[in-house]
Amino acid sequence: MDVFEAIARRHSYRGGYQDLPIPRDHLQRIVQAGLQAPSGYNAQDTTFVVVDDRSLIARIAALLGGGAVFASAPAMIVCVVERAPAASAGRLSFVIENCAAAVENMLLAATALGYASLWYDGSLRFEHRAEDIGALVGVPPDRVVQVLLPVGVPLESRQQAAKKPFEQRAWFNRCGSA
Amino acid sequence: MDVFEAIARRHSYRGGYQDLPIPRDHLQRIVQAGLQAPSGYNAQDTTFVVVDDRSLIARIAALLGGGAVFASAPAMIVCVVERAPAASAGRLSFVIENCAAAVENMLLAATALGYASLWYDGSLRFEHRAEDIGALVGVPPDRVVQVLLPVGVPLESRQQAAKKPFEQRAWFNRCGSA
Repeated sequence: MDVFEAIARRHSYRGGYQDLPIPRDHLQRIVQAGLQAPSGYNAQDTTFVVVDDRSLIARIAALLGGGAVFASAPAMIVCVVERAPAASAGRLSFVIENCAAAVENMLLAATALGYASLWYDGSLRFEHRAEDIGALVGVPPDRVVQVLLPVGVPLESRQQAAKKPFEQRAWFNRCGSA
Repeated sequence: MDVFEAIARRHSYRGGYQDLPIPRDHLQRIVQAGLQAPSGYNAQDTTFVVVDDRSLIARIAALLGGGAVFASAPAMIVCVVERAPAASAGRLSFVIENCAAAVENMLLAATALGYASLWYDGSLRFEHRAEDIGALVGVPPDRVVQVLLPVGVPLESRQQAAKKPFEQRAWFNRCGSA
């Protein structure tokens, strides 16, 4: 799929998935896109647990409240980062940026292969969800689940949320007012 | 360009650029890719100043030490975010993630159009560079330059930095050791 089409088609999917497994070579292609994302100092410090074991998915979905986008997902990609980024001694931390760039690449790759996904992020920080999911997939204590992506063939056709036009967010040579 | 090819070809370019202006419709297509990136709560809170005025580019390049990737760039995309993200009252801030996702989309779009770019980020935080560049392009006091992307037709052909293989950063169903 053309990159501009993938960017336009990518959307945050919160519906149910068709009961179709994802071939592992597709999951590997999606994660490979994440591996190829830029990272500060080329640190490549985001790691990934690809969950396609149905019983494990069910346990993760239960921790997340059992919504269809999790409970019916044939696969999830759990993105794991350093728990306490070391932003000291003049060396900055890009843990969040690096993970986000990898996630965006994976969302585009999933879109290109006909899947829908969701950048599930902030809610992981409440009610020990990140830690509980990390325990289920064996994340070591110095690392933490930052983002979770359910992946599957969507039951429903959805579109990207409406976006503001260029004129409201971008300007040539002089910043306008957002 | 196919999305997987764009992901594989994207690289951090630090060389000089050919003396070729970028058509504004190309710059708009690149920024449009950024506008279509996901953002937490669909906040769309990253804004963009597209610099293609040669004298302004020269002043920004001088602030950044005059390296070829800046001094010879026919355009720069200045990414602007909220200075003090409001992560209070149970509402998280995704300012960094949102900007990073937009940047990654723009890097892929630039790659697809035959340009090379660089995610220039951390060094902006030193020696008042973010503030000084912000002043040059009129960024208001409550917002700050987070990332700067020089864009142009590269003089030299470069490749993506070597990346670790899948086995060292990803596992099925159980986290391995990075």
